[in-house]
Order: sequence, then C-alpha cells, then structure tokens
Amino acid sequence: MTNFQYMLELLGTFFFAISGALAIQDHHNDLFGAGFMGFVTAIGGGTLRDIMLGSYPLVWIGDVHFLYSIFAGVLVAYFFYSSLIVHKRTFMIFDTLGISFFTILGVEKALTLNVEPEIAAIMGMFTAVMGGVIRDVLTNETPVIFRREIYATACLSGAVLYLILYRAGVPRDANLLVSSLLIVIVRVLAVKYKLALPTFRKM
Amino acid sequence: MTNFQYMLELLGTFFFAISGALAIQDHHNDLFGAGFMGFVTAIGGGTLRDIMLGSYPLVWIGDVHFLYSIFAGVLVAYFFYSSLIVHKRTFMIFDTLGISFFTILGVEKALTLNVEPEIAAIMGMFTAVMGGVIRDVLTNETPVIFRREIYATACLSGAVLYLILYRAGVPRDANLLVSSLLIVIVRVLAVKYKLALPTFRKM
Amino acid sequence: MTNFQYMLELLGTFFFAISGALAIQDHHNDLFGAGFMGFVTAIGGGTLRDIMLGSYPLVWIGDVHFLYSIFAGVLVAYFFYSSLIVHKRTFMIFDTLGISFFTILGVEKALTLNVEPEIAAIMGMFTAVMGGVIRDVLTNETPVIFRREIYATACLSGAVLYLILYRAGVPRDANLLVSSLLIVIVRVLAVKYKLALPTFRKM
Repeated sequence: MTNFQYMLELLGTFFFAISGALAIQDHHNDLFGAGFMGFVTAIGGGTLRDIMLGSYPLVWIGDVHFLYSIFAGVLVAYFFYSSLIVHKRTFMIFDTLGISFFTILGVEKALTLNVEPEIAAIMGMFTAVMGGVIRDVLTNETPVIFRREIYATACLSGAVLYLILYRAGVPRDANLLVSSLLIVIVRVLAVKYKLALPTFRKM
Repeated sequence: MTNFQYMLELLGTFFFAISGALAIQDHHNDLFGAGFMGFVTAIGGGTLRDIMLGSYPLVWIGDVHFLYSIFAGVLVAYFFYSSLIVHKRTFMIFDTLGISFFTILGVEKALTLNVEPEIAAIMGMFTAVMGGVIRDVLTNETPVIFRREIYATACLSGAVLYLILYRAGVPRDANLLVSSLLIVIVRVLAVKYKLALPTFRKM
Repeated sequence: MTNFQYMLELLGTFFFAISGALAIQDHHNDLFGAGFMGFVTAIGGGTLRDIMLGSYPLVWIGDVHFLYSIFAGVLVAYFFYSSLIVHKRTFMIFDTLGISFFTILGVEKALTLNVEPEIAAIMGMFTAVMGGVIRDVLTNETPVIFRREIYATACLSGAVLYLILYRAGVPRDANLLVSSLLIVIVRVLAVKYKLALPTFRKM
C-alpha cells in the first residue's frame, strides 16, 4: 500500500505540473516560465502546508523524485501542448482526481502533527488548492478559488467527511477512498450543473 | 489583564475577518471566497511574522478559538453586508483600532524572541498590515500600504515609540496604551487632513 | 576572504534595495512604499530560501546590518532618483552582478544544509530572482522571470556549473568567480542579442 500511495503522489505531482505549465499559455511564455509555473502549481500547496505546520524538510526537498515528476510533467506539456489544449475537458478530470487525493493526504499529514481537526481540514484544502492560487497570483489571474464553480469547498467537504469517519474508526484505506470520492462527486456535479455557493448581496 | 488581552486579540481577529470578507465585494464573490478573504486578512500578518521568526506553532494553529472568531466575523459580514457597507466610515475606526493593537502585540512577540529593536518594529508593522497586503494581492488590488494616506507608517511610529518607552522602563500596560494611541492619532489625522509622505520625484 | 565576502553581501543587498525602490516609479509612490519595495526586493529571495530550508534565524533578522544596507539603498534611490532613472542601462549592470553573486551564495548556503544538488541549484536561483518576483507580484506587474530575455535561466546555468566544478574539486574561490562570470555572460549576451528560450506553440 505504501508503495502504491507513493506512486500516486508522484503521479499527482506530475499531473499538477502539466496543468501548471499549460496555465501559462496566454502570457509571454517560454520553457522556463512554463517549467516554473508547473513547479509552483505542483509543490505550492504542500509547501505552504508544511511551512505553516513547521514540518521540515519539505516533501520535495527531502525527496528529489518529486522534482523529476515535475520535469516530466513540464516536458509532456511542452511536447503535447496542442493535443492537451484540445482535450482540456479530459484534462480537467485529472485536476479533479489530483485535488481530491491531495486533500486527503494533506489532512493525514496534518493529523500526524497533532493539530485540531478544524486545522487539519484547512490544511487538506490548502494542500490541494494553494499551488493553483500561487500560480494564478504570479500570472495576475483571479485565483482559481474565487473564480470557478464550487472548487475549494468540494475539497473542504471531503476533508470534513474524512475527519468524521476517522473519529468513527473507519479503516484508513476505505476512508481515503470514500472521502476522495465525495470531492470528485461534488466537483463534477458543480461543473455539470454550474452549482455555486450563495453570494454576498450586491447593493 | 491576560484574559482581557486574550479577549482583545480574539476581538481584533473578528474585526479583521469582517473587513477582509467585505473586501471581496467587487469580485465574483461567494460565501467561500469571502470566508477565505476574511481568514487571510485576519491571520496573514501574524502568520508571516511567526514564520519569519521561526516561532511555532502559529497562533491560530495552536489555538482554534481564533478560527471561531474568523467564522463569526465572516458570518456577520454575510448577514449584515448592506449595513456594513453603508457604515464604511464607522468600520474604518475598527480597522484603525485593530492595526494599532496588533502592531504593539507584534512588537512584544518579537521582543520575547530576542531580536534587535529594529526587527521588532518591522515585525510589529507586519503583524498589523501584511494580512491586508496578502488579501489585496489575491484580489489583484494595489496593496493597501501603497494606496492610502499614511497607514503602515502610523504603525511603524507606534512601534518605535513602544520600543523607546520600553527601554526607558515605562510599565508595559501604560506603554501599550500610549503607543497604540499614537498609531490611532497619526492614522486619524492622516485620513482627516490627507497627509502623505513625500513622494519620489516624477521626471 | 570572509570579510570581503560579507562586504559583497551587504553591497549586493544595497544594490537590490536601490533597484526595488526604483521599481515603484509608475505607481502612487511615497517614501514608505519605495522603502518597502526596496526591502522586499533585497531580502525576498534569501528569506524564501531560508524558510523553505528551515534555516533560522533569517539572515537579515540575525544581523541588522543588512537592514542598514537597505535603508542606505532606499535613501540613495530617493535623493538620486532622476540620475538613476536616466542611467538605467548602467544600473542594469549592478542587477546582473547582484543576481550572479547571490545565485552562487544561495547554492553554497543550501549545500551547507545537505540538500541534493538539484535542490541547491533551485535554491541558488530563488535567492537571486524571488525578491524581484515578490516585488512584481505586489505591484501587479508580470514577474521579471516571465517577462525578460533569459534571466532566471542564466542563474540556473551558473548554479549548475558551480555544482559540477564543486564535485570536480575545483577550489571554492575560483569556482565562485567562474560560475558567477557564466551568469553575467549569459545574461549580457541574452540582452544584447535578445536571446530567449523556445516558447510553447500557440494554437
């Protein structure tokens, strides 16, 4: 299981790097800029989480394989740019799988550091979405969490479910599966039916 | 006194969260986006200070009551949105009280970690203003510290006064009061008379 | 040598502060805003590096002389604003010397903390360019690393050369000189001949 999870983490990092590298399309973009965006998108969330929790070394600094996953993702984005842009819809599925998986991993990481459940839920969401937020801030875009249909809230819902089932004693692997699945379902329904949270009243 | 100060900190966090949640008004805004903005505004300054000083756990991670203050602030912003926007002037008073109080708390926190007075002054100012700066960066606004009449400089002046009186042996509570008051006065005068620092010459 | 290097670090900080303070020219700018920009530009890269590596205290918090260098740089920018803007070309030379020197210092700092060479190269580049990136994000500019002809890539090339020569046992001072020089040469050639990396294909 541990090996399987480790491979999933590297794979998630790879997909996040592709999505980050593709995000640069509207700007003056070169291989370095795209690589930097891929890097930031892939490691931003986990890095912010670990810095806030004071957990060192950062994952990608302690294990250089994550860098290789990012390099691979950026190269794939470079060589298959046209096809990836065309199949943006397909690609969104990977983003959804990525945020659902990384949310739960972030919750688990926070729990091992003995924080309150509320903090663990926030850390799970941060792990999933803050890489994209930092990427958007760097390119002067409105951050993804303010822009889209229910996105970060989907992550939060899965994080909360994980914590409830965790307290209820549900085995970890079943919990990981069910909670990730909730995130995927909420997100897919939100996109399909354009669901959004209530907005602040305009005057 | 300690209990009184703790309640003031929670109250300050509450007001910062309201001000952050209201800041989202011009953007596509939903309850999550506003909550996120309130959260960032409230904890951003202290978080940056503690990360720079290597002081763990971060205040809001070690004590979950600060999260509850933020939730309360965001809900108040949501349900009383119209009235709060109308009374923006009134609300600015709370912002001023908030930055004056958090500046001095930030200076004191830095001093307990044995940094030089110059660093403590900067950390005090950071505690007060960086939450708003991060909020503005996230919404692509010009950060508050570049925009307004004397703002961060008011915080710096109070921080410097606190450090001078501290060296002079003035009791802590009197010092807290006088130094906070200086920040309030400088800020209020700056807004009233549109005071600004000298600008760089344009060519 | 140590004293000489320490003076170079203070001098580099001084030049970065000037370049940061000048960057505010197009915005509503006052002495505080310019000072803040100078500060962020000068300490941003090293601060991010040390926070990511968990290396405390941060350089400028542990040694207040760096703050004085920044104050001096901002004052020079203020009093000699017109001449500095006119001689922007001359000034670019100092920026180039600054990033080349800080890249290698960043690599060396990372190596003393026992990270992999790939990480050390990234940390060297971060030390040199992230102060400018944070400055640009704060003023809603497109960050320097996405904008210019080869910039961060020049830093990376010097960092990689340093690591190769380091492995090959080349003495440190010679290595510092040669690797810094490569950064300067790549950067100067890039500006002169408008060299850029291959871009992602537009559809």
